Amino acid sequence: MQILVLNCGSSSVKYHLFDMETERDVAGGLVERVGQADALATHRWAGGSAREEVAAADHRAALLHIREVLQAHGGDEVAAVGHRVVHGGERFVQAALITPEVERTIEACAVLAPLHNPHHLVGIRAARQFFPQVPHVAVFDTAFHQSMPERAFLYPLPYELYQEQRIRRYGFHGTSHRYVAGRAARLLGRDQDDFTGITCHLGNGCSLAAIEEGRSVDTSMGLTPLEGLMMGTRSGDIDPAIIFHLAAQEQRTLPQIDQLLNRQSGLLGVSGVSNDLRQVQEAAAGGSHRAELALELYAYRVRKYIGAYLAVLGRAEAVVFTAGVGEHSSQMRRRILEPLAGLGLVLDAERNRDEGSGEREISQPSSPVKLLVIPTNEELVIARDTRGILLSRASS
Amino acid sequence: MQILVLNCGSSSVKYHLFDMETERDVAGGLVERVGQADALATHRWAGGSAREEVAAADHRAALLHIREVLQAHGGDEVAAVGHRVVHGGERFVQAALITPEVERTIEACAVLAPLHNPHHLVGIRAARQFFPQVPHVAVFDTAFHQSMPERAFLYPLPYELYQEQRIRRYGFHGTSHRYVAGRAARLLGRDQDDFTGITCHLGNGCSLAAIEEGRSVDTSMGLTPLEGLMMGTRSGDIDPAIIFHLAAQEQRTLPQIDQLLNRQSGLLGVSGVSNDLRQVQEAAAGGSHRAELALELYAYRVRKYIGAYLAVLGRAEAVVFTAGVGEHSSQMRRRILEPLAGLGLVLDAERNRDEGSGEREISQPSSPVKLLVIPTNEELVIARDTRGILLSRASS
Repeated sequence: MQILVLNCGSSSVKYHLFDMETERDVAGGLVERVGQADALATHRWAGGSAREEVAAADHRAALLHIREVLQAHGGDEVAAVGHRVVHGGERFVQAALITPEVERTIEACAVLAPLHNPHHLVGIRAARQFFPQVPHVAVFDTAFHQSMPERAFLYPLPYELYQEQRIRRYGFHGTSHRYVAGRAARLLGRDQDDFTGITCHLGNGCSLAAIEEGRSVDTSMGLTPLEGLMMGTRSGDIDPAIIFHLAAQEQRTLPQIDQLLNRQSGLLGVSGVSNDLRQVQEAAAGGSHRAELALELYAYRVRKYIGAYLAVLGRAEAVVFTAGVGEHSSQMRRRILEPLAGLGLVLDAERNRDEGSGEREISQPSSPVKLLVIPTNEELVIARDTRGILLSRASS
Repeated sequence: MQILVLNCGSSSVKYHLFDMETERDVAGGLVERVGQADALATHRWAGGSAREEVAAADHRAALLHIREVLQAHGGDEVAAVGHRVVHGGERFVQAALITPEVERTIEACAVLAPLHNPHHLVGIRAARQFFPQVPHVAVFDTAFHQSMPERAFLYPLPYELYQEQRIRRYGFHGTSHRYVAGRAARLLGRDQDDFTGITCHLGNGCSLAAIEEGRSVDTSMGLTPLEGLMMGTRSGDIDPAIIFHLAAQEQRTLPQIDQLLNRQSGLLGVSGVSNDLRQVQEAAAGGSHRAELALELYAYRVRKYIGAYLAVLGRAEAVVFTAGVGEHSSQMRRRILEPLAGLGLVLDAERNRDEGSGEREISQPSSPVKLLVIPTNEELVIARDTRGILLSRASS
């Protein structure tokens, strides 16, 4: 059985084709700069790859191109399509078969994710047209966090803002947190749903989740992906009154401040070098004080969240690192973890330094809390969820 | 030696008269509704008290009235006046003798504390006129936190905002955190400056501080007192993007959102009952779901900060509770602390329930981290700092 996984961003369409017998990703690619004159497509398949400029005036054109490439390279038996959707609001606690009603609900959630959901919808509608015979499934970044209790998802705001406007913490990266929590459980010799600990998704966007017996009970992103950790270009947590201060003292407009916090802050803003951790690490090694500061702030803020979630959970079997920075920067893991030995997180410098890939333990054998690196695989989760809905539909 | 301590708010003047031989507060009082037709003064002194409507069209009139009352009741030998000042920016790391230059610096800091510093200045200027023969000293809420390292005080914003606008974490309640940290050290049998642990100032405003060997290394309030914990009417930490969302989706103006976060949120906003914890506790006991939620959120957020600061410090000798809620609500302390036994904070239910006053330990004897209640005394710290400057001046 083949399942196609699609992720439509504002100017890109990513795809992965899974063979579900092996759960292997047998083809995949990306059309980027969608809507621009110089849209670029990259593809890989069993035994080959291609990179070409394409005409992709919109998401529809990009998807049509992807379908052609798939048909030419063995992707002609797609049994279902899984769509990544950022925001499912409170309505979706798990993946959903896409119906006109589900489309309307995704549209209604666009008010909470104006930069994402509208593009997903365009992609969903085009894909349903180009793959009309198969079921389409939506898998939501927010769904895994819907298990949070009120004390974690409510803000200390007038309660009416929640009742009437659904202003609350939703959290994102749920598919990733869920995947690595399940893998951590298996590595610890337990059932997939039986993990209590902390998962750290550190990519260009960053979030932590506190997981209790396989369920998310808190996470650092909130109503939007701006809250929480310091990220590539996002500030994460700040004094909210900084916004009032910038507006009053510097006559900045709200859209300017929004840009400032979402696009010009984080690693980029502090270092002045880049939003890419590798470049910031290089600059710090080269003597840049601001780059060094950026790394220190980044690590410090992850550390504080780890402490906060230890307090939330009361105990943790493991702390898991995933995504670009989490999987690949041994330096950042060391900066985060080294000062935490007193709390039972005892890093093994050798194991951490080892730049191997794959799932691995980086704590000392005696560490009360295990430290794990687990490469994430959100696409596989989307493919599995899609297969699950396909099978339950077939059997009902 | 008598020292007068003054605290000028936007519409109030508080005072305390200390006899520094005994360090006892021998008289004190408050003029409130300054600037309104029905200003009200309350006074107490050795063997008496009074409560009366007064003419206090401005802070000058209020101070003149206070001087008269003091002169009538034994406060005629004031040797120095100590002024509480909320914001000392980066300039003041300790108390300062007030000179014209210091006044100008306090004025320059008003951009960071527009609701406080201008009123302090009015009070300072009037008091210097009415007590012209004695030194005046400014004691800053921010000063104690000036020992924070960059990783704690910088925000993940473009670095220029710090360099050019001094946008950073300052922290407040410093006088209180410093006092209780000093007392905790003594209770633990150490030198006053040798305390490593967490101090929780939970009043109508709330902040935590991480204290390392007597120095503040992090605190939850930031550029302004809005950041951090959930408070009586302040939200504390939220997704900053909620401000953009409210402005865009609900057409609220920034001043309205400022009011919302500073005056209509926190315990009041969630419970719908009151900003006063006692009333919220009563409503929760009476079955109000929203009141119960407010208490849960409040405790949960304190708990997360305790965990974060354990991660910052690596170890803690004690966690100290002070100010109205911290000193008097055994229920709130229980809500905060009971789930933290796994982290070495083992509350003794009996000791905690004991509604005694004064300094006391509320942890079980075997608790790895001591839990202490220590009534704060900011006015005494201001009086001591003022005496210190007076004496150093006399000897130089």
